Amino acid sequence: MKYTDDSFMLHTDLYQINMVETYWQDGIQNRTAVFELYFRKLPFGNGYAIFAGLQKIMEFIKNFGFSDSDIQYLREEGKYSEEFLKYLQNLKFTGTISAMKEGELVFANEPILRIEASLAEAQLIETPILNIVNYQTLIATKASRIKQVIGKDTAMEFGTRRAHEFDAAIWGTRAAYIGGFSATSNVRAGKLFGIPVSGTHAHAMIQAYRDEYTAFTKYASTHKDCVFLVDTYDTLRSGVPTAIRVAKEFGDKINFVGIRLDSGDLAYLSKKAREMLDEAGFTEAKIIASNDLDEYTIMNLKSQGAEIDAWGIGTKLITAYDQAALGGVYKLVSIENENGEMVDTIKISANPEKVTTPGRKRIYRIINKGNGHAEGDYIALDYENPQQEERLKMFHPVHTYISKFVTNFAAKELHEDIVVDGSILYKEPTLREIQAYVEENLHLLWSEYKRTMNPEEYPVDLSQACWDNKMKSIKEIKEKITKSV
Amino acid sequence: MKYTDDSFMLHTDLYQINMVETYWQDGIQNRTAVFELYFRKLPFGNGYAIFAGLQKIMEFIKNFGFSDSDIQYLREEGKYSEEFLKYLQNLKFTGTISAMKEGELVFANEPILRIEASLAEAQLIETPILNIVNYQTLIATKASRIKQVIGKDTAMEFGTRRAHEFDAAIWGTRAAYIGGFSATSNVRAGKLFGIPVSGTHAHAMIQAYRDEYTAFTKYASTHKDCVFLVDTYDTLRSGVPTAIRVAKEFGDKINFVGIRLDSGDLAYLSKKAREMLDEAGFTEAKIIASNDLDEYTIMNLKSQGAEIDAWGIGTKLITAYDQAALGGVYKLVSIENENGEMVDTIKISANPEKVTTPGRKRIYRIINKGNGHAEGDYIALDYENPQQEERLKMFHPVHTYISKFVTNFAAKELHEDIVVDGSILYKEPTLREIQAYVEENLHLLWSEYKRTMNPEEYPVDLSQACWDNKMKSIKEIKEKITKSV
Repeated sequence: MKYTDDSFMLHTDLYQINMVETYWQDGIQNRTAVFELYFRKLPFGNGYAIFAGLQKIMEFIKNFGFSDSDIQYLREEGKYSEEFLKYLQNLKFTGTISAMKEGELVFANEPILRIEASLAEAQLIETPILNIVNYQTLIATKASRIKQVIGKDTAMEFGTRRAHEFDAAIWGTRAAYIGGFSATSNVRAGKLFGIPVSGTHAHAMIQAYRDEYTAFTKYASTHKDCVFLVDTYDTLRSGVPTAIRVAKEFGDKINFVGIRLDSGDLAYLSKKAREMLDEAGFTEAKIIASNDLDEYTIMNLKSQGAEIDAWGIGTKLITAYDQAALGGVYKLVSIENENGEMVDTIKISANPEKVTTPGRKRIYRIINKGNGHAEGDYIALDYENPQQEERLKMFHPVHTYISKFVTNFAAKELHEDIVVDGSILYKEPTLREIQAYVEENLHLLWSEYKRTMNPEEYPVDLSQACWDNKMKSIKEIKEKITKSV
Repeated sequence: MKYTDDSFMLHTDLYQINMVETYWQDGIQNRTAVFELYFRKLPFGNGYAIFAGLQKIMEFIKNFGFSDSDIQYLREEGKYSEEFLKYLQNLKFTGTISAMKEGELVFANEPILRIEASLAEAQLIETPILNIVNYQTLIATKASRIKQVIGKDTAMEFGTRRAHEFDAAIWGTRAAYIGGFSATSNVRAGKLFGIPVSGTHAHAMIQAYRDEYTAFTKYASTHKDCVFLVDTYDTLRSGVPTAIRVAKEFGDKINFVGIRLDSGDLAYLSKKAREMLDEAGFTEAKIIASNDLDEYTIMNLKSQGAEIDAWGIGTKLITAYDQAALGGVYKLVSIENENGEMVDTIKISANPEKVTTPGRKRIYRIINKGNGHAEGDYIALDYENPQQEERLKMFHPVHTYISKFVTNFAAKELHEDIVVDGSILYKEPTLREIQAYVEENLHLLWSEYKRTMNPEEYPVDLSQACWDNKMKSIKEIKEKITKSV
């Protein structure tokens, strides 16, 4: 990297800059625009997702502003006027951002963030914010799915070598922690985020000493906590017996945490290893397993009675292997017109899921005061106040005949203002607080929404006013098109 | 990020540091170790892979060295002695790295890089190097697959918003360029790597102006090159006719490049749009398509006669969606013993693919001088010299009865020394040179290895001496285990 002042302002799609140029030349760059960020479909067939990425978004917003080398690059592209480049160089973020808390449970088609800013500013931040939310939310959700299957056992993130480059490794393991993991192998993630780091030795150490007995002995001579990796040559004939031998020889001089299995038939090997450890008197020694694990293999191993106490999860988690992208989008829902009034906007599509919902909105989680569980989420237009209602009609936004009335509820608003007119109000929680917030929120959900296979669909409903407003917009557009044909 | 001196030295698995501690306490940290980096299986069922990542590896090696805050973090973990921390703080990279050229065609089970360094240094760089090679090679390979199907049409990388965080977006698009793409939407990738950037406007601009005619007119008033996105409301009834109307009105004042389709039935819509453009006299206008494309959808669209001239590829490329990880590994093949002699090492597994091939090796591409095509790759022990042989026996390393004799060949050695005893010899090629090297190498391959479905298996064979050495090592280990039982 040749630049000492490189920023992330150019970490955006070129069309954003070209659109801003049009707005600026046309004099509408400062009109207020309201964008919402949401995804249309839950990943992995899961019943919920976990929002992650807010800390990095805040870092990006704090550092908003083109650097000299950014401007110089655009100048050298030869397509932009000096006046426009000067405008960009002076640009500061002056908008307002409302967001769910990091760690919030989030469902399809509800805004995770709402950006209300000048059209230019709102457009420039779209790409990096999507890049952040799409990945981090995907991994927090995958981690939570895996953790649901793992239950009380320890879950550790081991995927750095298979992550999609450096940022994914560290932000992915942070997201995994949010989703319920308790440790990472990535030391830098420990340094940057305070995540507990975990790891003892690899096959290479055995090979370097050329036999397991020497290698384990050397490790035990230099470390208190010992986990011996037992599958370099032959797990049951060599690895486990040698681990036991060294643990016996060292006795109280070490803390023999246990062994790690990294290949082969983990169900069979773990059961046999458990027997061998128990027979040798090491009933407290743990068996740690790794090797391309995910929620499916773990569930399968557990159903076979595998004797595994802790799980190291790599590739399948850090890459979200079975669905490697979350399709978050960022859509304009309202814009200031030439008279200074806000006008709602819509995007139509032949595909009903791709039709946007116009208008500035608020999102409420409707919590049944009787049983403490969430009845669903309720998306209302800005001016509505469901918190004041005694009886709320909730209906499915596509199959509108599916409806229910809710009484005795609390309507918890899910957005907080984290940036107001460019001033940052965001208070960064600790990572442990975010993790705890996830746990707390999962208790709100009926277990039917939490199972990993075929969960019930959690209701995300529009208010009547919001729905009517959408239908009105669709009608207007259709009439305009029909007229123009 | 709280640190001004953060380095990537801790971007490694904790076990590397713990093993180095053992080596250091045991006094073997400076023994020479030879590690090889390779993968066991080609991704996507492709017939070849394209090595990418060398530039970033060189950046990492140039910056090798723990920072104060790295050491302070390890100190605060409370597990390492001050002497050991001092040792780490003074550590420099003094080893030798041999590597394939970036852009080299690479196949399963052949070393892409060979690291010959002190045991400590070699161990510490394993994780970051794997992290780099696994991702960048995966994406260069995916891009090449897609480009094979796209043929001469323009291929553009549009995936930033779905990439796994920031690094993946920019290094991924660089890898896509290596694999044959010609442009990216990511402006920062343009700045950092000189990749041509591409993009005009998004749906949001149509929505901001609330009708397509106004939006296209405003864009055309402020930009010479115009691609109009036509699917915001209704592609054939509104988008395409409006694009044509504006193109006619502006005439020579703009360069009407064409239109972009981003949803719906791309085969049908492109054919209809082509007719409409042709009828209006815009026979040169291009049709650009995007929307979850990959080699399969593109092949399908082409087989339906879709009238698409340029392809914007996002999610499926930048995340390698159908196989989101390459399983590259880094294995010790030789180590200095207590007498200063090099001894070959092996890792055995019940799974035959996971057995390593011991010894320091060289890799040759065997090129038939008669037809100019590659006959296969040949892995020989360091001391062998196949370039001097007149007749080479090549046999399959698993099914050894599959064999052939090759004559009239050139044996091109695939590794170059890029770092020697810590001195960097690497000359950074331009990205265009790397891309051209890929094209040149693809010409060496018979087309049977290049098809996207069920390609022939390209031979990667071991020399007789290399194979014998492996069998000898396996026998030794087996005898040792049998004796100890």
